[in-house]
Amino acid sequence: MSGVRRFAAQATGDFGWAEVERLRYKEEGSAPFRDITRQVLFAQPDQACELRYFEIAPGGYSTLERHRHTHAVLILRGRGTVRIADEAHPIAQFDLVTIDPLVWHQFTAADDCDLGFLCLVSKTRDRPQLPGPPEAPAPSSGHDEAA
Amino acid sequence: MSGVRRFAAQATGDFGWAEVERLRYKEEGSAPFRDITRQVLFAQPDQACELRYFEIAPGGYSTLERHRHTHAVLILRGRGTVRIADEAHPIAQFDLVTIDPLVWHQFTAADDCDLGFLCLVSKTRDRPQLPGPPEAPAPSSGHDEAA
Repeated sequence: MSGVRRFAAQATGDFGWAEVERLRYKEEGSAPFRDITRQVLFAQPDQACELRYFEIAPGGYSTLERHRHTHAVLILRGRGTVRIADEAHPIAQFDLVTIDPLVWHQFTAADDCDLGFLCLVSKTRDRPQLPGPPEAPAPSSGHDEAA
Repeated sequence: MSGVRRFAAQATGDFGWAEVERLRYKEEGSAPFRDITRQVLFAQPDQACELRYFEIAPGGYSTLERHRHTHAVLILRGRGTVRIADEAHPIAQFDLVTIDPLVWHQFTAADDCDLGFLCLVSKTRDRPQLPGPPEAPAPSSGHDEAA
């Protein structure tokens, strides 16, 4: 519905918004990750994309994964590192990160501050693949709540 | 292509990014507006949406308009006002603004600071309608560079 939802940082400094729920990053035990939350800021009925906000506590990290869908990321808060394929890139507030199809990637917060970022993805997207021993091929399409 | 494009504020304080061009908001004379620029941050081939960044100088404003496609807006910098239908709402950094189909809207920067905001839209969208004397109905679909 048309309107303004106010930004309201929590007492801890973590980012939050009116009417936006703070969710688990993904199911516990489904993949390796640490100290990360997810908030869906926009999922407009007429748009085929979602804008999510992820927040990683100091020293935390997202899952190392790859998938056919792309990520379009804008760092909203803090500092950290993004691994893209075999390279680690420092990232800071308002930097833009693009992740192409099937490129391994992982976001890590700095040891001394949080890392918060917007991530734009298609609503319909394939399930992430994890590194490790050979396994059954992942489905090529579907919907998944992971980053 | 996968990678990081660095945030690099200009000497004036205006927001900018490596490899991102600062564009005109829309064609001069096509509609009323003042002191506003447009930068396309992401238009991923596999995503049906674009993420753009608009920056309005102090006292400037976007066109008062409406259209069938929706806007999903996150304020990235500064303060101002958004008019939604007949109501004016103050807006500040990191607030979220939703504009529903066919709702009149206009963004205005405060007199003493810039207003910068991300705007997420579908790549395929209808042309904005302007207020004024009755005119021929706007096309119901197509692509337009306007906000």
